[in-house]
Amino acid sequence: MSELLIKNGLFVTMNDAQPVVRGFLHVIDDRIAYIGEQEPQVSEGAEIVNGQGLVFMPGLINTHGHTPMTLLRGFADDMVLQTWLQDKIWPLEAKFDDNSAHWGSALAQLEMLKTGTTAFVDMYDRTHIIAGVVEQSGLRGVLARGVIGFGSPEELDAKFAESCNFVRDWEGKADGRIRTMLSPHAPYTCGPAFIERFVQASHDLNVPIHTHMSETAAEVEQNVRDYGARPVEHLDKLGVFGRPTLLAHAVHLNDEEIALLAERKVAISHNAASNLKLASGVARVPDLLRAGVTVSLGTDGAASNNNLSTFDEIRLAGLIHKGVSGDPTAVPAIEALKLGTIYGARAIWQESSIGSIEAGKKADFIALDLNKPHFFPLTDIISHLVYAGSGSDVVHVWIDGKQTVRNGECLTLDEERIYREAQAAFERLL
Amino acid sequence: MSELLIKNGLFVTMNDAQPVVRGFLHVIDDRIAYIGEQEPQVSEGAEIVNGQGLVFMPGLINTHGHTPMTLLRGFADDMVLQTWLQDKIWPLEAKFDDNSAHWGSALAQLEMLKTGTTAFVDMYDRTHIIAGVVEQSGLRGVLARGVIGFGSPEELDAKFAESCNFVRDWEGKADGRIRTMLSPHAPYTCGPAFIERFVQASHDLNVPIHTHMSETAAEVEQNVRDYGARPVEHLDKLGVFGRPTLLAHAVHLNDEEIALLAERKVAISHNAASNLKLASGVARVPDLLRAGVTVSLGTDGAASNNNLSTFDEIRLAGLIHKGVSGDPTAVPAIEALKLGTIYGARAIWQESSIGSIEAGKKADFIALDLNKPHFFPLTDIISHLVYAGSGSDVVHVWIDGKQTVRNGECLTLDEERIYREAQAAFERLL
Repeated sequence: MSELLIKNGLFVTMNDAQPVVRGFLHVIDDRIAYIGEQEPQVSEGAEIVNGQGLVFMPGLINTHGHTPMTLLRGFADDMVLQTWLQDKIWPLEAKFDDNSAHWGSALAQLEMLKTGTTAFVDMYDRTHIIAGVVEQSGLRGVLARGVIGFGSPEELDAKFAESCNFVRDWEGKADGRIRTMLSPHAPYTCGPAFIERFVQASHDLNVPIHTHMSETAAEVEQNVRDYGARPVEHLDKLGVFGRPTLLAHAVHLNDEEIALLAERKVAISHNAASNLKLASGVARVPDLLRAGVTVSLGTDGAASNNNLSTFDEIRLAGLIHKGVSGDPTAVPAIEALKLGTIYGARAIWQESSIGSIEAGKKADFIALDLNKPHFFPLTDIISHLVYAGSGSDVVHVWIDGKQTVRNGECLTLDEERIYREAQAAFERLL
Repeated sequence: MSELLIKNGLFVTMNDAQPVVRGFLHVIDDRIAYIGEQEPQVSEGAEIVNGQGLVFMPGLINTHGHTPMTLLRGFADDMVLQTWLQDKIWPLEAKFDDNSAHWGSALAQLEMLKTGTTAFVDMYDRTHIIAGVVEQSGLRGVLARGVIGFGSPEELDAKFAESCNFVRDWEGKADGRIRTMLSPHAPYTCGPAFIERFVQASHDLNVPIHTHMSETAAEVEQNVRDYGARPVEHLDKLGVFGRPTLLAHAVHLNDEEIALLAERKVAISHNAASNLKLASGVARVPDLLRAGVTVSLGTDGAASNNNLSTFDEIRLAGLIHKGVSGDPTAVPAIEALKLGTIYGARAIWQESSIGSIEAGKKADFIALDLNKPHFFPLTDIISHLVYAGSGSDVVHVWIDGKQTVRNGECLTLDEERIYREAQAAFERLL
C-alpha cells in the first residue's frame, strides 16, 4: 500500500459541492481517500507533501490529438487546411515508421505531462507504439487507430482489422490507464458502408467511436453534395450516434444539429486553437452548452496548434466565445475550467473515476506554483487559473496516485533523450 | 564602458535584411555594436554569455496598459464593460493611494520583465509613482497621466496641469528610458473642448497623444448621438490626429475610418485578450495592416486580461484573425511577431532605437530557453515563438545593455517583497 498526504493545500476540486477547499488531501494507492479541512489519520510510512504556495486541481483532460504528429510542429503553418494536409502533412506522414511514431508520441506525452494534462485522447495509426509510450509515461490514454477510408478493399480490410485488434489487445491495459475506441477518420474520408462496419464493431467490442466532424464549412457542403445530408444527420443515419461518440471539432453546426447531438448524448471535443489557426471558424460552444451537450477541450495535433497545453485551450475557451458572441458572461471562468477537467472526463466516459478531486475517485491531480507575478494578488483562484495561469505553472503531477512530474521534472520519461531522438526522427523524414 | 558578447546564439532579429542569424551579438554600453556570423574582437573584461540552447529576440513592446490596476487582477470577471467599470473597478480605484499605485505598478513591471517585455505604455494617474518604479525596474516606459474629464472646472484644471507637469518633469528621465505622452482618457469621457486643450499642450510640449477609442460598439453609437460623428472623424476634427497619436483598442472601425487612420499615420494598440474578455469584439487587424496602419499589441490592464504577457497577445493575434476572417494566411507568424516588437517600437515613435536586433540600436533583447518540449523539433523558430512559445520561456532580459532578468530571476526588483506588499495593498482596498 502506498499512501500520500498533502497538507496546507489550496484545492480547486471541480466538485460543485465544495469547489474550493483549504486543507488536506489523502491518497491511498491509486485513489483519493479524503479531501477536506480536517487532518486525516495516516500510516507511519505515508509520504507527506507540504502544499503551501501551491494550488491543486484535477489533472487536465485533452480529448483530441494525434501525438506522433508532434514531430511536424512548425513544419508548415499559415496555410489552408486541405492544402496543408495534402501538400505538406500527408506526404511527410507517409514516411512515418515505428521510430517516428514512438518519438513523436513520447515528445507529445512529455509536453502534456509537464503542462498538467493527465489523460488524453489519441487518434492515429501505429497505435500499439503509442500505447507502449503510455505504459512508460504514466498518462491515461484513450487510444484509437484512426482510419482514412482510401485504398483498395484489401487495404481497408487490413486497417479495419488493425483497429479491432488494437481494441482487443489493449483495452484496460497499463492498470486500466489505457482505454480504446474505434475511429473512422471523418465522413469525408470514409464511405458510408465503411463507417457502418465501425458502428457494428463498436457494438461487438463494446467501445466508443471517435471521429472528426464538421471542421470546415467546405466539408459540410461536400457532405450535402455527396450524401444529401449534413454530417450530423448523415452519421446519425449510419447508426454512429447509437453508440457512445466523441466528435472532434464540430465547428459548423445549425440549431437542429445541436439539438440532435444533445438528444443522442454525443460528446464534443472543442479544438479552439486549431480551428482558429486553420481558419476553420469558431465552434458554437455557448449554444452547445446551453443545449446540454457535453463539450470538452482538445489541442488537436501539434502541427496545427502548435502546442499541447490544455491550459491554453482553457484560456482560449474563456476568451473567444465572449468576444465572438458579444456576451461577456459567455463561458465564465468556472465553466472554462470544467471544459478542461470534469467535462473532459464525461466526454471520455470516465466521469465516475476522474475529472475532479473527490473521495473515491482516481488520484489524478496536479499542483501549480502560486509564487508567480500573474497569480498576485491572490483574489479569485478560479479566475487566476483560467485567465492568468498556464501550463508552465505546473510543478507536480500525480496520476493513479503515482507522481509523474516533480518540481517540473518528468519522472517517467527521459527528457533529454526524447529531445534528441525526436529531432533526429524529424530530420530523417525530410 | 561595459561590454557584452553573446556567442553561439540563435537570433531572431526582426530586421528583414537578416531575419534569423546564428552567431554573435556584441553590446557596448547601451547599444548593439554588432550582430552577425563573425566573431567580433572584444576587450579583455567583456562579459561572455554562451548562447547555446537559447533563442534571442528583441524585447517585447506592450503598447497599452494601466499598471497599478494589476492590484485588481481577478477581482471582477465575466461582466459587461460598463457595469464592470462602474460597479467594480472605478469604486475600488477611487480608494487607490500612492502605496497601492506603487505596489500595483511594481507587480506589473515585475510580471512584464519576467515574461520578456522591455518597453511598455502606461496610462494612469499617480504617474510620478509609476515613473519611480520604472527608474528601479530598468524597463523602458512611455507614461501618460490618463485624464477622465468628469468633475468641476477646477478639478479638470488640476488634472490637466498634472498631466502637463508630468511631461515637464519626467520626459527623457532614467537615462532616456522614460518618455511621456498626454492622455485624455477617451472621447466618451472627455468633452471636445477638454480634448482640444490636450491637443494644444501636445503641440506646446512636443509629446504624442494616447487615448482609448472605439473599444465598444455602444461607445461609437454614443459618439454619433452626442457629437454627430463617429470617433475617428470626431477626434480628427478636434485636431488629435494632427499630432502623433496612439489609439488603444480601435475595435469598431468602418472602411473610411481605416483609410483616414492610415492617412493620418495614427498608430493602434490592438488589445486582443481584453477585447475578447470584455466581449468588445475583434479589431480588424488584417484590414488595418493592409491599409498600412501601424498596429502594435497591448495587454491592457491585468483586470481585463488577466495577465501582462505580450507573448500571449502575439499568439492570440496569430490565431484569432485567421479564425474570424476565415483566411488561414491572415497575420502569419512573422507578422504576429512584428506586432509585438518592431511595430510596437514604431507605435511609440522609437523605431530608430528599439524593436529589432540591429547594430546601432539600443540593446533591448531577451533570451528564451529552447530546452522545452514545445520547441521540439527545432523547425521554424519564428513559428515556434509565436504558436508554441510563451512568456514563461524567457530566462534572460537586457534593457539598455543592462541585464534585468537572469535565469528567470529579476535583478532589479525584490520579487518576494512585491508579492507581499501587493497582496497587502489589495486587501487594504477592500
